[in-house]
Amino acid sequence: MNYKSVVHSISSLLLVMGFFFIFPLFFSLYFHDGVHNSLLLSMAITIFVGGTFFYWTRGKTAIRRREGFLVVTFSWVLCSFFGALPFYISGAIPSFTDAFFESMSGFTTTGASILTDIESVAEGLLFWRSLTHWLGGMGIIVLSLAILPIFGIGGMQLYKAEVPGPTPDRLKPRITETAKTLWIMYVLLSALQTILLLFGGMSFFDSLCHTFGTMATGGFSTKNQSIAAYDSVYIDGIITLFMFLAGINFVLHYAALKGNIKAFLKNAEFLFYVTIVVVGIILASLFLIGSADHQVAEAFRYASFQVVSIVTTTGYCTADFEQWPYFNQVLLFVLMFFGGCAGSTGGSIKHVRIMLLLKHAYVELYKIVHPKAVKKVKMGTIVVGDNIIHGILAFFLLYMAVLVLCSMMMAALGLDMVSAFASVTATLGNIGPGFGDVGPVDNYAHLPLMGKWILAFCMLAGRLEIYTVIILFIPELWKR
Amino acid sequence: MNYKSVVHSISSLLLVMGFFFIFPLFFSLYFHDGVHNSLLLSMAITIFVGGTFFYWTRGKTAIRRREGFLVVTFSWVLCSFFGALPFYISGAIPSFTDAFFESMSGFTTTGASILTDIESVAEGLLFWRSLTHWLGGMGIIVLSLAILPIFGIGGMQLYKAEVPGPTPDRLKPRITETAKTLWIMYVLLSALQTILLLFGGMSFFDSLCHTFGTMATGGFSTKNQSIAAYDSVYIDGIITLFMFLAGINFVLHYAALKGNIKAFLKNAEFLFYVTIVVVGIILASLFLIGSADHQVAEAFRYASFQVVSIVTTTGYCTADFEQWPYFNQVLLFVLMFFGGCAGSTGGSIKHVRIMLLLKHAYVELYKIVHPKAVKKVKMGTIVVGDNIIHGILAFFLLYMAVLVLCSMMMAALGLDMVSAFASVTATLGNIGPGFGDVGPVDNYAHLPLMGKWILAFCMLAGRLEIYTVIILFIPELWKR
Repeated sequence: MNYKSVVHSISSLLLVMGFFFIFPLFFSLYFHDGVHNSLLLSMAITIFVGGTFFYWTRGKTAIRRREGFLVVTFSWVLCSFFGALPFYISGAIPSFTDAFFESMSGFTTTGASILTDIESVAEGLLFWRSLTHWLGGMGIIVLSLAILPIFGIGGMQLYKAEVPGPTPDRLKPRITETAKTLWIMYVLLSALQTILLLFGGMSFFDSLCHTFGTMATGGFSTKNQSIAAYDSVYIDGIITLFMFLAGINFVLHYAALKGNIKAFLKNAEFLFYVTIVVVGIILASLFLIGSADHQVAEAFRYASFQVVSIVTTTGYCTADFEQWPYFNQVLLFVLMFFGGCAGSTGGSIKHVRIMLLLKHAYVELYKIVHPKAVKKVKMGTIVVGDNIIHGILAFFLLYMAVLVLCSMMMAALGLDMVSAFASVTATLGNIGPGFGDVGPVDNYAHLPLMGKWILAFCMLAGRLEIYTVIILFIPELWKR
Repeated sequence: MNYKSVVHSISSLLLVMGFFFIFPLFFSLYFHDGVHNSLLLSMAITIFVGGTFFYWTRGKTAIRRREGFLVVTFSWVLCSFFGALPFYISGAIPSFTDAFFESMSGFTTTGASILTDIESVAEGLLFWRSLTHWLGGMGIIVLSLAILPIFGIGGMQLYKAEVPGPTPDRLKPRITETAKTLWIMYVLLSALQTILLLFGGMSFFDSLCHTFGTMATGGFSTKNQSIAAYDSVYIDGIITLFMFLAGINFVLHYAALKGNIKAFLKNAEFLFYVTIVVVGIILASLFLIGSADHQVAEAFRYASFQVVSIVTTTGYCTADFEQWPYFNQVLLFVLMFFGGCAGSTGGSIKHVRIMLLLKHAYVELYKIVHPKAVKKVKMGTIVVGDNIIHGILAFFLLYMAVLVLCSMMMAALGLDMVSAFASVTATLGNIGPGFGDVGPVDNYAHLPLMGKWILAFCMLAGRLEIYTVIILFIPELWKR
């Protein structure tokens, strides 16, 4: 393990992150919210620490596979650590555990919050909080589209034709290139959403913050009531649309920008994603209408917002879905496992995996009827190799194993069955709101200290496609 | 599809089953419980229908793969149908849906009941109810050890060395032979348990009924309070022991009878099963002691009974585990997915599958660190083939898919989230008691009519290893 290059990579990232404090600083000064010193100090610490280690470890470095896992995991951990500084230094979040939880929730685009009165928090901090989402989303796009496929993991390994695996020494140019192309899309869509929200009468500050929360499928709001605070059909619609877009593979957006709109219709995962979203919205609407207190249009509005919010793992709310019919609750709980498409900012299992798992099960059923038939899982016209199926199956199993073990730990800390499973599902899937004690009108403030660390681990593991984190516990990684 | 041979096979089974009504008839006459006419009529109908179809379809018959699935599924469905007759005819269960539910719950060794006052039911009917467990357990032993491996499904396909796959035309002698050997074990263990329960002061009638419920990992009791009614450390201990034994592969019991005790220690699944049971008991005991109102010995007594009862999918209760600490509830819920060993009478996913799934996930993690390494899943020293791993993974996925879809249906019928998931988990896993509306002190009587049919389907699908039932929905099976 070449620790020098690991430290070098992470410290360079911290250095970059440090400069991003300039944006919340701007808003802090603009709003005279009194936290500019805390932000400046956080910025200084981050840049100093990042810069020092960057300088110490300068020279030729090489990142191989095993270093890669360490770099990725600790990039998120350390960004969350330094990202927690302004919350803690300013005293807005007095417990460091809470500050770290909030920062991790931001960078992993989860959106689970320990803040009980968001609107009382200084604007500079709220902006930083939302910005962590947006930066985390940027990180995820590079990670899922450029880094993980090289390691042979993550949903995007399926698109090997589109993301050719370079030899390790070509890693850097490849990442830079992918990052540039796709960040353009990310920035363009973000700019568009901000403008559209401004048209809806939202302030520039709120528009930016909610755009960050949407495009990163994060879910942090500047309002205690989340998006419900605006009670606007237009704003609901815009955010629903952009949550839906953020859940799509950014490679497809890029293709569309280049004029290849057909790329969407040729993509089996996208079609599956649309199907799930449409069926989910129809079912949720029907049951909402059935529960009598909703008109058809109203039911459709709330159902479509909440279904898209949950399925993309954003977690914004316009309704207390724990008051919805039981069917809708179970539906939303199940949708928590679908997540966005591979190559989107969405978390959880991802549609492509679920689709291929279902296809695999069907192929096995077919083989029992025709034991001698040669039938393979296909995506579109391409046969999906056994090694990819094996990887996806293992991912699913590890996901379930982490879910079960962490839920047991949460229950051991005193959470009831629903809250234990829901809190882990909502953090592992990077969603935010769950059920029970962590429902849409609750938050994570009252959880036991140890529980917050467990859930922070879940956010990290879920965001980094499980493998990247779990692999650090495998002794083989550390052997020469 | 050769329907003639399908009807012939099923009708021969009905004919045999019909004669088993003689046993409840005996108890009915002995106790003067007034249901002897209903039992006689049920017997006559079953034998008449079975005999008629048996005679009509006589002649040379051949059961191939595709007929096999139909025979197995409809054997359970029709046995449950005719098994429901005495409950319905006697008026003890006025709704036929309820009578069928109870009978299906018996033959699938589930133990979920719609009876609200068991002790008011005639002895003859209670004996028949428990006997359906025992007969169902017999069926499962043959199914899992002799029939399913030939189809290439079920956990026992792993033990191919021990259960060589014969050519289709050798199916019949093979089944007969396996059945004989293993039923000897089943009968011997049952006799032993009955005697031991008699020593504990249980009546002969109750001893037999509870033995049937134990050896089949069923869970029907003759008491409203289940085993808690006896409040006896001795009886708790005996039933715990025999539930544990019933959860073990009967091939191992047979080997032990032949003097090969080491067979247990060489069996990886058995060792995993013991580990799960021991760890489960220790954890459950610790949390029960922690909840203050239990002494160490008392905590161990209740924890061991309930952990073994749930993990083996029996479902007997000595405590209302919904009053236990949250950790224990989550633990028991998770254990509901483990089930017994392959080749036992236990239901659910089975230990061997969970063990191999975990091993597969580890191998995949290892491969990410060492992409060029050749590492395979092993059981003991034997390499487990990819086709077996594929089959197990597909089983797991189908199990989860049925769980999710049926839970959504139950929620659509008005069950809350916990009750919806728990009722399906408890019936699909052939356990019996669940959580929420179907907890250990509740029953299934109050569920909506449609819900009872859905859960009856779950019992059937779970008991027949999912594949056997789901495959009937695959169009390919019905094509020429």
